[in-house]
Amino acid sequence: MRHIISALVENKPGALARIVGLFSARGFNIESLAVGETENSEVSRLTIIVGGDEAILEQVRKQLGKVIDVLKVQDISDDSFVERDLMLLKVSAKAGKRPEIIEIANVFRAKVVDLGEKTIMFELTGPEEKINAFINLMRPYGIKELARTGRIAVLRS
Amino acid sequence: MRHIISALVENKPGALARIVGLFSARGFNIESLAVGETENSEVSRLTIIVGGDEAILEQVRKQLGKVIDVLKVQDISDDSFVERDLMLLKVSAKAGKRPEIIEIANVFRAKVVDLGEKTIMFELTGPEEKINAFINLMRPYGIKELARTGRIAVLRS
Repeated sequence: MRHIISALVENKPGALARIVGLFSARGFNIESLAVGETENSEVSRLTIIVGGDEAILEQVRKQLGKVIDVLKVQDISDDSFVERDLMLLKVSAKAGKRPEIIEIANVFRAKVVDLGEKTIMFELTGPEEKINAFINLMRPYGIKELARTGRIAVLRS
Repeated sequence: MRHIISALVENKPGALARIVGLFSARGFNIESLAVGETENSEVSRLTIIVGGDEAILEQVRKQLGKVIDVLKVQDISDDSFVERDLMLLKVSAKAGKRPEIIEIANVFRAKVVDLGEKTIMFELTGPEEKINAFINLMRPYGIKELARTGRIAVLRS
């Protein structure tokens, strides 16, 4: 099962390295990691998505709570949450292909953020499956560059 | 000066830990880190934003290129790029306050993604300054939870 771990961490050099090291020391591959400032610029929120052995992951979660710069750790996988990922995708699009590419993008409500002679860049947010579906539809046109933020998740009220 | 480093990395346990460790070993605080899959599920793109001493950063960038799982490293700070960050923000919003909060959100084109009796959750994407401005306007209402993905950047055509 996939786990979504949300942690509040002090913004200090080395904190991130210690946290990521805890996972890699046990052979967990971090599927997605997002690190961003919170409303307090001295505190960052990490959202880590990992799969793997439940018992070992529970150990990692506990050790995480003991890292000095970690203020709070939650495994929110079983709760009700809103999950989002952000992607920038640059795709080949010569003039003749543009209308059909933009038509697909409109269905997904992807925004055009840059338009060149031979390429278009889109911004798209959503849950993972929506983003993956869009990537698959753009693939035949020739993906030039693609960056995703990794997922963040916040508990519903 | 702030540097935006974009790297393609093989999706293997330990790769992320080695990369993050290179920065922390030299006392660089990673301001923002986003890790997401690319169109090739075996390769991830890391976007790392750091500030600090230029000469040392250049060394780190070179060492990064030598890490076995790192396929490509670019410092795109001086190029023309599109930069985006994604935020989920849950704010206190009793019925009486809702209209004014939603009015601010509309100006920023933030989307309502969850609505409870006492809270609203918004999704907002944009460059850093736009997101910071929205946070500051929401602060007086009482921010309940906030997660940001960290920034991604893709070169313009």
